[in-house]
Amino acid sequence: MENILYAVPVIGVIALAVALMLKSWIAKQDEGNARMKEISGYIREGAMAFLGREYKMVAVFAVALLLIVAIFIDVIAAVACLFGAAFSVLAGYIGMKTATDANVRTTNAASKSGMPSALKIAFRGGAVMGLCVVGLGLLGVSVVFIVCNLDTGIFANITLDDCATIITGFSLGASFVALFGRVGGGIYTKAADVGADLVGKVEAGIPEDDPRNPAVIADNVGDNVGDVAGMGSDLFESYVGSIVSAITLAIAIPTVNSGLLGKEVELDPVIGSLFPLFLSAIGIIASIIAVFFVNGKTNNPASQLNLGTYISSAIVIVASYFLSDVCFGNIGAFVAVVIGLVVGVAIGKITEYYTSGDFKPVKEIAQQCETGSATCIISGFATGLTSTVFPLLLIAIAILGAYYAFGLYGIAIAAVGMLSTTGIVIAVDAYGPISDNAGGIAEMSELPEEVREITDTLDSVGNTTAAVGKGFAVGSAALTALALFVSYSQIANLDRIDLLDPKVVAGLLIGGMLPMLFSALTMNSVGKAANQMIEEVRRQFHEFPGIMEGTQKPDYARCVDISTGAALKEMLLPGALAVICPIAVGLILGTEALGGLLAGSLVVGVLMAITMSNAGGAWDNAKKYIETGHNGGKGSEPHKAAVVGDTVGDPFKDTSGPSLNILIKLMTVVAVVFLPLFL
Amino acid sequence: MENILYAVPVIGVIALAVALMLKSWIAKQDEGNARMKEISGYIREGAMAFLGREYKMVAVFAVALLLIVAIFIDVIAAVACLFGAAFSVLAGYIGMKTATDANVRTTNAASKSGMPSALKIAFRGGAVMGLCVVGLGLLGVSVVFIVCNLDTGIFANITLDDCATIITGFSLGASFVALFGRVGGGIYTKAADVGADLVGKVEAGIPEDDPRNPAVIADNVGDNVGDVAGMGSDLFESYVGSIVSAITLAIAIPTVNSGLLGKEVELDPVIGSLFPLFLSAIGIIASIIAVFFVNGKTNNPASQLNLGTYISSAIVIVASYFLSDVCFGNIGAFVAVVIGLVVGVAIGKITEYYTSGDFKPVKEIAQQCETGSATCIISGFATGLTSTVFPLLLIAIAILGAYYAFGLYGIAIAAVGMLSTTGIVIAVDAYGPISDNAGGIAEMSELPEEVREITDTLDSVGNTTAAVGKGFAVGSAALTALALFVSYSQIANLDRIDLLDPKVVAGLLIGGMLPMLFSALTMNSVGKAANQMIEEVRRQFHEFPGIMEGTQKPDYARCVDISTGAALKEMLLPGALAVICPIAVGLILGTEALGGLLAGSLVVGVLMAITMSNAGGAWDNAKKYIETGHNGGKGSEPHKAAVVGDTVGDPFKDTSGPSLNILIKLMTVVAVVFLPLFL
Repeated sequence: MENILYAVPVIGVIALAVALMLKSWIAKQDEGNARMKEISGYIREGAMAFLGREYKMVAVFAVALLLIVAIFIDVIAAVACLFGAAFSVLAGYIGMKTATDANVRTTNAASKSGMPSALKIAFRGGAVMGLCVVGLGLLGVSVVFIVCNLDTGIFANITLDDCATIITGFSLGASFVALFGRVGGGIYTKAADVGADLVGKVEAGIPEDDPRNPAVIADNVGDNVGDVAGMGSDLFESYVGSIVSAITLAIAIPTVNSGLLGKEVELDPVIGSLFPLFLSAIGIIASIIAVFFVNGKTNNPASQLNLGTYISSAIVIVASYFLSDVCFGNIGAFVAVVIGLVVGVAIGKITEYYTSGDFKPVKEIAQQCETGSATCIISGFATGLTSTVFPLLLIAIAILGAYYAFGLYGIAIAAVGMLSTTGIVIAVDAYGPISDNAGGIAEMSELPEEVREITDTLDSVGNTTAAVGKGFAVGSAALTALALFVSYSQIANLDRIDLLDPKVVAGLLIGGMLPMLFSALTMNSVGKAANQMIEEVRRQFHEFPGIMEGTQKPDYARCVDISTGAALKEMLLPGALAVICPIAVGLILGTEALGGLLAGSLVVGVLMAITMSNAGGAWDNAKKYIETGHNGGKGSEPHKAAVVGDTVGDPFKDTSGPSLNILIKLMTVVAVVFLPLFL
Repeated sequence: MENILYAVPVIGVIALAVALMLKSWIAKQDEGNARMKEISGYIREGAMAFLGREYKMVAVFAVALLLIVAIFIDVIAAVACLFGAAFSVLAGYIGMKTATDANVRTTNAASKSGMPSALKIAFRGGAVMGLCVVGLGLLGVSVVFIVCNLDTGIFANITLDDCATIITGFSLGASFVALFGRVGGGIYTKAADVGADLVGKVEAGIPEDDPRNPAVIADNVGDNVGDVAGMGSDLFESYVGSIVSAITLAIAIPTVNSGLLGKEVELDPVIGSLFPLFLSAIGIIASIIAVFFVNGKTNNPASQLNLGTYISSAIVIVASYFLSDVCFGNIGAFVAVVIGLVVGVAIGKITEYYTSGDFKPVKEIAQQCETGSATCIISGFATGLTSTVFPLLLIAIAILGAYYAFGLYGIAIAAVGMLSTTGIVIAVDAYGPISDNAGGIAEMSELPEEVREITDTLDSVGNTTAAVGKGFAVGSAALTALALFVSYSQIANLDRIDLLDPKVVAGLLIGGMLPMLFSALTMNSVGKAANQMIEEVRRQFHEFPGIMEGTQKPDYARCVDISTGAALKEMLLPGALAVICPIAVGLILGTEALGGLLAGSLVVGVLMAITMSNAGGAWDNAKKYIETGHNGGKGSEPHKAAVVGDTVGDPFKDTSGPSLNILIKLMTVVAVVFLPLFL
């Protein structure tokens, strides 16, 4: 069976090949007229400029991190860490480049050939990101695993235990880039959004996406930076983390106690490591097949996108049954995979219920807007809080179920199962910001109303898929962090993390407090970065009066530059916290207390991430619901109240909420990698 | 030494005697003119009407609870539970009666003799509540303990283990009344407040506390119901809970592992039970002494009130040194007491920093109001989140320190130490709503401007003491719940509550989710109850036009009645959750999972309680800060933004936040009492 292992990186390469094929297919589509090309050029340049600066900063800090890992932990782990970071960067770079190619072509397709073609381009633009993430993720992990198991040269003396450390190094690299991508990107996108809205829409009175607004390009860049690159790096981290956790557990745990099978099953470290790799390879094949089912042949984008998700899940479920039987001779792992997949889809659907204008919660918030912004805020926040109930119950059930099916290892397998279809999930998710951009380009290029109508339809579906994607991101982060938490305990040789030990309780309290602090810091960062943007836009309007008259071109690049600089600066403090806190607690209070810290931050982080993401999504859609003519319609007092809700929700849903995914995963990975320091 | 035990209930009786003495002293003060008497009569009647209906409802549910406890657990525990509930009711009744006597007399003293006399009456009004809470609390616990240890009749066969169950029954009664008092009272006070403000101030355009507003009496009643009776029942629960936890631990744990003393110390169950009783008795004496130091001889209310707190703390610290030495022959318990006291005071001070207009956080929120209500909300919420950092660190340090000093038992002793000065803490805290009411009465009686100025000064100090009191209430709830959690584990004979057990993690996740749900439910309840109030006020204005012209008297009683009914109805669902969830998890997933649930709800509950209370307090004071002429002053656009923040903060700080104190304590007590069902 071990020889088939070499097929795994091949599947990763195939995913990349398909991604590059789709990328060149997109490049071949028509970009439209000169104006469209010009605008999309600004967006592309801005997005790439942000990535360039972000990656430069990543490089600086990565060197410091690598040195620390190399000196205190292990040199090969440091090299693996470098690869993890580089692969995440590469996925982000290709994905974002393609997204900024696809947006204008989506606009053009909407204008020339109508909805189905536009949908196809936007979706394929997202699929490139999706396939790059899973392709590079699986390629990286499997190559590191294969190299560790080579019997030649410097690799000859690597034991399986060393392999666990080294492969976690790869995961640390992915986490590190995700920190910059998600937190920095989250701050960027909202600073640009708030800056563009406050000065452009409110002060100058020009419409959204008006090319006279100097921040308009930065705002469109933000969609790519936050929702494409940020989200991609987040899921790259989860994807890699879940596989790594399963492999490290397979190495650390000799037997699996399965209640389902009614016996203690021996867990071969090699087979146990191969299973998650094979499963992920199957998931990639399933995603590739699903991508080609979304072929833009109907006028209903939502059903097309759902079809993709369901097809890939079905393929994984069927194949994992046989895989489980071949690898382990039982259905324990299969059941864990199914649990993970079902819970992932279910959390997405629950998120949709709480954040879509089609259902009761958002309609009630719109209703509460009639009595003013205060009741809008209260009711939206209460909706966010309430929306935690079922996801948390589902995660709890998933843990119990996966453990019952296949022991502690089963929990990690459930995470791998949930994330096996990440390729298609990202494709569906990244389709949203591409459509959003396509609409912006249509507006700025002054294309006819019908074009905007098509992009608006695509965008509104994109809002739903984005909400579902956020739910999936939180759910998968939770399960990945939990799996890594289990790995941590096993590698640390902890036979218990006991809540009756005051150190563990102290860790739990401190860990619980960190997501609150992290949320507050990122929220305030958006405010500070937005203020710099506001000042710049005001300055341009003031110094160049020709801008408003349309005779002078605003300095888009400067706005992009300011937002980039502010975002990257503002992410340093929360980022440093996420790295330093677990190390400090581990050194001062020991491994049990650090276990408590991870558990505390996991629980509170997941709760706050769901609350903030969903409250933000619900406010956003309550505003949109009112804009479609309900509860007074656009421009009414209730609409003004809804705008307040939406503005509060912006940093909630696009900065603080998603950043918490990173916090809980990164802290756990840091704890695993730096374990030797605390023992 | 056991004979001195009989002195403990005597100290409780002395506290009651002093309380009744103060009560009759207050009654002897002049009530002022006929108009003042009339208005204060309405408030008193309304407050007592609420208590009457609340207690009737308590009685109904208490009977059900008692039957369940009697049938499934123990008959004597059920009787103890009845006493616990009855004593809490009695403390609430006397305290609230006195508060509603003291308010009008404070107004009159402000008008006749000036600030110092007014301060003295308002403070003594609060002191009656404070002394009743600690007097009845200690009397009840000590009598139950003494009766359990009698060697005659039906008591002859009660073992020490039985005694632990029975005394926890007393605690359950206290918790049960606190649920109604804090949650029902919290919903009442904000429904009345919002109703009075929205229709009176906003729609009809009449000032605050205008007697033409039909909801104005309900609003003033709300201050008493929420901030006097609700707070009193909350601290009664903590006070009793901490003592009970120390006693049950003394019974369950044979030895104390003290790092400080460097050895395992034997813990005699009787001595270990007597220590918290003696310590609380000392705290009562200290509180009584401190009460008489606040003698209204200066014009600086804040320094007078602080003096009271510091004197009582100093007395307890000195006396506990000797008590620790006499009881245990070492300073272990003494150190735990000091840790508890210091942390309690420190959390109060931190709360003041984040919520008072004198410091940076509130000033920054006021500044953010200049860019609108959305930035006001974001910055206030971020302040609330940030304000969790130091309290959580302090609680973590307190646990580690108390455990190091005197083992698990030391954690309970730290809680008892923190709460030993509850008498004076409540006095200082309840002084706030009395002063607030005094101002309302001055306004409604159309007394001269100077009188209102004095009551405003008292009230503004009261706002600070209320914030400090809220911080103390959260901190003490956290430590009490922790101590009860330790008792739970020991009585359940759990040698571990292991975070590597998936059931414990599932419990942790579910437990963490409950405070989110509880907050959402109570927040929505305020909205629903307020809507009923709004409709009633509108109806009265519409049907009786004479009200606005001042020729017709509004129907105050009906507004009080509606708010009462709505509040009590709305509290049932969250209340039921708090009782049913721990029992359900205990029955389905077992005692370890229930331990996880308690830990999860403790961490998240404390974090959310601090966040919501402090965000609410900060918004409130940012509004007041602007009203004193900063950032645009009253009536400006920033002021309007601040009003939105204040309105959002109302249910945060006065309903949902404080209700979480009850949730975390009640669930733990329920877990302890119903333990026999899960074993």
